[in-house]
Amino acid sequence: MSPPPTMHDRASILSTGDEIVIGQLQDTNACYLAQQLTARGVRCVEHAAVGDDRATLVAAIRRLAEHSPLVIMSGGLGPTEGDLTRPALAQVMADQLVTDDAAAAALRAMLAKRGREANDHQMRQAQRPSRATCLSNSFGTAAGLRAIVQVAAPHGVSEVFCLPGPPGELRPMFEREVLPRLNVPPGMRIITRLLHVVGVPEAEAVTRMGDLTRRTRNPLVGITASGGVLTLRIRYEGDAPELAATAQVDEAERLVRVALGSTVFGRGEDTLASVLLDRLKARGRRMAVVESCSGGLLASLLTAVPGSSASFTGGWITYSNQAKERDVGVPNATLREHGAVSGPVATAMALGGLERSCTDHCVAITGIAGPDGGSEAKPVGTVWIAHAWRDAGRAEVDARLFRFTGDRDDVRGRSARAALALVYFALTADAGIARSGPLLWEMPTGSR
Amino acid sequence: MSPPPTMHDRASILSTGDEIVIGQLQDTNACYLAQQLTARGVRCVEHAAVGDDRATLVAAIRRLAEHSPLVIMSGGLGPTEGDLTRPALAQVMADQLVTDDAAAAALRAMLAKRGREANDHQMRQAQRPSRATCLSNSFGTAAGLRAIVQVAAPHGVSEVFCLPGPPGELRPMFEREVLPRLNVPPGMRIITRLLHVVGVPEAEAVTRMGDLTRRTRNPLVGITASGGVLTLRIRYEGDAPELAATAQVDEAERLVRVALGSTVFGRGEDTLASVLLDRLKARGRRMAVVESCSGGLLASLLTAVPGSSASFTGGWITYSNQAKERDVGVPNATLREHGAVSGPVATAMALGGLERSCTDHCVAITGIAGPDGGSEAKPVGTVWIAHAWRDAGRAEVDARLFRFTGDRDDVRGRSARAALALVYFALTADAGIARSGPLLWEMPTGSR
Repeated sequence: MSPPPTMHDRASILSTGDEIVIGQLQDTNACYLAQQLTARGVRCVEHAAVGDDRATLVAAIRRLAEHSPLVIMSGGLGPTEGDLTRPALAQVMADQLVTDDAAAAALRAMLAKRGREANDHQMRQAQRPSRATCLSNSFGTAAGLRAIVQVAAPHGVSEVFCLPGPPGELRPMFEREVLPRLNVPPGMRIITRLLHVVGVPEAEAVTRMGDLTRRTRNPLVGITASGGVLTLRIRYEGDAPELAATAQVDEAERLVRVALGSTVFGRGEDTLASVLLDRLKARGRRMAVVESCSGGLLASLLTAVPGSSASFTGGWITYSNQAKERDVGVPNATLREHGAVSGPVATAMALGGLERSCTDHCVAITGIAGPDGGSEAKPVGTVWIAHAWRDAGRAEVDARLFRFTGDRDDVRGRSARAALALVYFALTADAGIARSGPLLWEMPTGSR
Repeated sequence: MSPPPTMHDRASILSTGDEIVIGQLQDTNACYLAQQLTARGVRCVEHAAVGDDRATLVAAIRRLAEHSPLVIMSGGLGPTEGDLTRPALAQVMADQLVTDDAAAAALRAMLAKRGREANDHQMRQAQRPSRATCLSNSFGTAAGLRAIVQVAAPHGVSEVFCLPGPPGELRPMFEREVLPRLNVPPGMRIITRLLHVVGVPEAEAVTRMGDLTRRTRNPLVGITASGGVLTLRIRYEGDAPELAATAQVDEAERLVRVALGSTVFGRGEDTLASVLLDRLKARGRRMAVVESCSGGLLASLLTAVPGSSASFTGGWITYSNQAKERDVGVPNATLREHGAVSGPVATAMALGGLERSCTDHCVAITGIAGPDGGSEAKPVGTVWIAHAWRDAGRAEVDARLFRFTGDRDDVRGRSARAALALVYFALTADAGIARSGPLLWEMPTGSR
């Protein structure tokens, strides 16, 4: 197959599977593919997801190919009868399915390695439309597909890639088979830069940034709020030379930073956890955690960052009162007098963890994540977070009360992120470690 | 507004926002909305996501309204210039935007409560097309919208609901404003039942289930693999009376269970964590964890389940070797002789955690999540998981070696799920707690 050259100036993403359309599975592939394409200057114009129905799938492929010279599909390549991407693509191409010899051999070899035989279900995964090519799958049994589809639209042809649904198979295949074939128009340039902000409500950020968020501006600043963190997207789209375009994005970033100050905590792939770990590493400090209501989520956010072991030593999940006493030495009397969700208990957890972990920082979370366990005085969403640290040999502590809204997941997620922000702001304050930082979120209602 | 009655026999979901289309944010709303609609018998036929561009948005609303008598939109209702759902909907309706008095008053009151003033950006959030109605937002500033759009399609009109993007605002508004207005055709019935399976590869499950997965069958059995767990969807769609339809789904479930045996661990909302916690509770047992490479993820999966504190007492995140020695008593000599990722260390972690937590079960994970830290003998993905429990006063332990594929997230996620499965199978074995259960995943390469 010698494909006619297609310019990938924009792309559409098509996910297939009843499990996506009925909401059984979160479509993480579309998000990944969009990120990858955007980073390379390909403008994503649409995501669509349709179920395992051949006619619907055929219509969706046709429509997106008309819209975009590049279509990336995921799913529907497996061994079951619900896997319809191969026949649907063949129908769109007015082609027929054939077995690909190389793909069939690779499939048999992979199955043999696992001690299994190649049955008819399995062998479907080596089929392709006769005018398409197979993409090899190093991490699974289903071969991918690449095809050129003729369309009436001005772009004439659309290049369609079909990748397997499991992310562990889709991602390596995308990187090996799709990325090298991206054909981005030379004059066209998209630069997207993300800035992450914590501690300012969205409307206030918009007001402070003024003209920067005007829709007709280039670069344009977009804004998204999620889990207590705002993400600003600075996006340049045009044909300026790279240096000039980058300079414009730099200038927009500078203006954002003037408007929002130290609440801007990161760029790009940065997360609250990663910037905190960087900050700890730069200062040669180590940290531990003591978690009650967040139950491991805070540690999990930290350890999700590669290399976190350099600054994060570990922690305690003190879910029961007994564990709070035994593992980090919270006095029984404090638990009885104030209750597990209280400033004194959060303080004792943080100080106990600091001492026992022999680290420089320890942050503790105790709260009511719900749905049960709330009371009038301490409703669901009541969370105490304490940060303890060493300052010239002395242990210091800063405990704060938050009232988060939302369900159990929201409360746990916001608690973990507020804890990260509390330590991060303490470490970034100009005068060393300070008790005060920017106001966290909109929710803190007091401090001890 | 007295809307003409529309039959909601199918629905489309439209998400808006550059942050979704460029992959900055995972679109969790589409998944939630699809789940909710499917559970009520409304067939979801498509999800689409488009960016903050008015013409694209107008085209998408028109197209989906032609396809479906019910369209649920999310996002684009906020205070920024990138929030274009209100003007786009007005354009589709050939209508103009007006300020809704009640929504404006509610918005001013909410801002006043937060000590902020209502500026022009803010007040956009109280606008609506003159023939639409506003939906009040109890958890945020942006009012939702409900409108009837005329279409040429056979259904004549399509009912469009616009909900705010933040999940904490969208979900309560959906439940209060959309659910009571769903108009499902009386004869039409969709019953979906999910079964969850661990320990069988997908193609083997398909082979074992035989005719059950044939596409023309009703109920039809669909299958999805994710993170080592298979989910089977038994889906009935037709006009049989409820009892008869349910009996057909029951029979399909029975046949699946015959085919797959004890590898079927749950139904519906069940997760490995929730069924394990139920099993522990039923037997009056409690459990603790000791985590190294999974770094809190295992505990986080357990504590995400409401009421988990009844059976889960807590645990240790022993990320450093020092923590492994100090917190759960792993002998220094064992660490030196075998390395932190080894059967003897996993065993010592589980036994130490069992003893110190005074629980009945303790599961420990130590492995190499990557991207760094792998070697030829112990490549990235090498994970030891040990389960220790008390049997007639004696401590027993079962340690197993896994080699997981994928990136850091995959290895951590599969490790945590394998640990849950290991304890779950031990607790479900007919002869009490047994060392053997169904083979876990495809990856275990040895056992000690």
